Amino acid sequence: MDLIARLRAGLPGEALLTDPDVTGSYARDMANFCDAGTPAVVVLPRTVEQVQHVMRTATALRVPVVPQGARTGVSGAANATDGCIVLSLVKMDRILEINPVDRIAVVEPGVVNAVLSRAVNEHGLSYPPDPSSWETCTIGGNIGTAAGGLCCVKYGVTAEYVLGLEVVLADGRLIKTGRRTAKGVAGYDLTRLFVGSEGSLGVVVRATLALKPEPPQQLALVAEFGSVAAAGDAVCRIMAEGHAPSLLELMDRTSVRAVNAMAQMGLPETTEVLLLAAFDTPDPAADLAAVGALCEAAGATQVVPAENAAESELLLQARRLTFTALERIKPAMLIDDVCVPRSQLAAMLEGAAAVAEEYDLTIGVCAHAGDGNTHPLVCFDPADPDEERRARESFDAIMALGLRLGGTITGEHGVGVLKKDWLARELGPDTVELHRGIKQVFDPLGLLNPGKLF
Amino acid sequence: MDLIARLRAGLPGEALLTDPDVTGSYARDMANFCDAGTPAVVVLPRTVEQVQHVMRTATALRVPVVPQGARTGVSGAANATDGCIVLSLVKMDRILEINPVDRIAVVEPGVVNAVLSRAVNEHGLSYPPDPSSWETCTIGGNIGTAAGGLCCVKYGVTAEYVLGLEVVLADGRLIKTGRRTAKGVAGYDLTRLFVGSEGSLGVVVRATLALKPEPPQQLALVAEFGSVAAAGDAVCRIMAEGHAPSLLELMDRTSVRAVNAMAQMGLPETTEVLLLAAFDTPDPAADLAAVGALCEAAGATQVVPAENAAESELLLQARRLTFTALERIKPAMLIDDVCVPRSQLAAMLEGAAAVAEEYDLTIGVCAHAGDGNTHPLVCFDPADPDEERRARESFDAIMALGLRLGGTITGEHGVGVLKKDWLARELGPDTVELHRGIKQVFDPLGLLNPGKLF
Repeated sequence: MDLIARLRAGLPGEALLTDPDVTGSYARDMANFCDAGTPAVVVLPRTVEQVQHVMRTATALRVPVVPQGARTGVSGAANATDGCIVLSLVKMDRILEINPVDRIAVVEPGVVNAVLSRAVNEHGLSYPPDPSSWETCTIGGNIGTAAGGLCCVKYGVTAEYVLGLEVVLADGRLIKTGRRTAKGVAGYDLTRLFVGSEGSLGVVVRATLALKPEPPQQLALVAEFGSVAAAGDAVCRIMAEGHAPSLLELMDRTSVRAVNAMAQMGLPETTEVLLLAAFDTPDPAADLAAVGALCEAAGATQVVPAENAAESELLLQARRLTFTALERIKPAMLIDDVCVPRSQLAAMLEGAAAVAEEYDLTIGVCAHAGDGNTHPLVCFDPADPDEERRARESFDAIMALGLRLGGTITGEHGVGVLKKDWLARELGPDTVELHRGIKQVFDPLGLLNPGKLF
Repeated sequence: MDLIARLRAGLPGEALLTDPDVTGSYARDMANFCDAGTPAVVVLPRTVEQVQHVMRTATALRVPVVPQGARTGVSGAANATDGCIVLSLVKMDRILEINPVDRIAVVEPGVVNAVLSRAVNEHGLSYPPDPSSWETCTIGGNIGTAAGGLCCVKYGVTAEYVLGLEVVLADGRLIKTGRRTAKGVAGYDLTRLFVGSEGSLGVVVRATLALKPEPPQQLALVAEFGSVAAAGDAVCRIMAEGHAPSLLELMDRTSVRAVNAMAQMGLPETTEVLLLAAFDTPDPAADLAAVGALCEAAGATQVVPAENAAESELLLQARRLTFTALERIKPAMLIDDVCVPRSQLAAMLEGAAAVAEEYDLTIGVCAHAGDGNTHPLVCFDPADPDEERRARESFDAIMALGLRLGGTITGEHGVGVLKKDWLARELGPDTVELHRGIKQVFDPLGLLNPGKLF
């Protein structure tokens, strides 16, 4: 029996897509310049049993499986391989439970981040992780990539909110990991092993997530700096003084101009760096005043507090638009995601500017400054072979710089196919060998998302 | 060449203990009723290279190795096996770095928790995890057991503070995991895999820890309840209302009387349950007033706020003394560590009381109530075989109850040898098989802390 027939035996007709025009549209996520193959079939299961059927079939026929969420990732981790089953979890999108006493939600993997966020808000709770794609990305994808966001400087990343999982293994067995309790240390932390494993160890079909009480509405300020050194100094002072901003974001002049050009935001263009800080504390105005003073001490030329929550939200909006805005500068863009110790932020930003100059390229930088997580965005025209070569080399130079500064090649976007070579450089051969060993334990036939990570 | 001679070839003389009277004192941690073997030798290395030498020697000669911290654990995870090398990390006790901008500390595993806490306090920072043994336990032990504490309800457990590790593998190779950045998703989360693995996957020789800004001094209240149902209801109300107490602890009447008897604390003995709540917020008095009102609404017969920080500290002290105080009631004690969803706290406490009655035993209960993490403490006389049998059966009955209520057999104390059978029950055979597979990847000869966990 062939693959499609066997899949059909355990799935409703509408769960199976075989038209190549349709399946082709599931071939890749939002990463540029990452290889993607042609899927044999796309499956859209609605139940755990259907996922198990897919994995049993894949195991029986030795067919690779690529799990997918909303394909908003930017590392190619959800890209198809030739002849694979694309296993899209987007139809498993139920919120099964929201519990304000236990402060947990139980969800299926296809729930959209913003849908969950709004649903828990109605119970006075918040689900903090907020990747830029939060309006469309799924919780399953967030778990697969261990996604970050703007809130992380205060609230941490996706990994810190995943208490327990139900996972279908490569051979179709269903396991539970973790717990729905606040604490628990029963055995190895398999939950955390699955988070960020990019679908290479199993298929997450249910997640128990920790929630927080909903904080007060945040209030923001924007500070202008004449140099990245001064802005980096401000970030260091803010964090060293013990402040807990709910966001601390940075945009360089290139990013600011791109956002203004696209969305007429009226951000100040005459300065080198904008720093956005926000607080959702009981007295955000007082905290902002203290942080504003630290910015001025570090050399800020202007500090402008938002008048109200709406104005604060607008500033956030501007920051969230940076990727899209910079993508309009040139036909293509490579997105870096280097995270350095925040004490090295200024060095990282200066280094990225030097790389832009050396390679004669436009590289806009936005950053989750409070986390030291920078996104240098290399803009280029792939129709110009020399410019493309320089773009790729600069992309690599930026990661090399990040490692030299004690950082990591990926703060929150993951490895996928985009950074496989670099993962090996960061981890070294012994640790890569351990990764292969773990992969072998969970997926001895190597069927789950092959060719990603390492 | 024999074991001792080969070890001596790479270690200074004072790092090697071979006198059986001395080595015997390293045979066990603080767990009762757990098997312990006789070590062949105790090694006290001071450098990473010395640890590597020990592991290379152990691998060459196929000798098991039991890593140890301060042996304050209560599950037998640090107990020796016959003929093993006890690898005590207590002499590797340097704090290598405290960085207020990056909010990290880099430490060796033998640093005592309280020493680190006080050292970072001097920089305006805090290292929150605070197991009851914090004055003597080591960071390495905390990492091995994924230790909890009283702060967890607000600040989380040890695992959440471990950013990166250096680990000597079973064959002596040294690897680095994780990062010193705020975020990072480069590959599988090996850091988290080591945390709580009870020394079964590698020997942690260095840790990069996240720090928090030092919070204001906390202020506490004590509320008295006539029933565990009312106290459980109060906990649910406090958490459902979105409060973030810095501790929310519970003592039953048995615990209160034991503490009073030992330390003349003057705690009220006429009531069934005491609930301690504290806040380290900007306005703790206001938060305590709100929580006090919730306690009264849930049926508290008395709510007494502490007058000041010193009085608050005294209440905390009382709670910390519970284990020691209850140990004096009978010659022996079995310490349970069942964590349930906090909405099930009252059911868990009522169930534990029913078990005490059924088995005709004194079982005092204290709990990290805000986390649903209960410590039923089974007091008994091992000289009375029937009482010992009843004690062991009640210990098991309590874990069975915890699992029925959606909880875990261990919230923070770990598995060791004490709860091996129960780990298998909680995880199930498929997950245990995955554990064995992972163990095999890291330690193919099975030399690291054999016989623990599973």
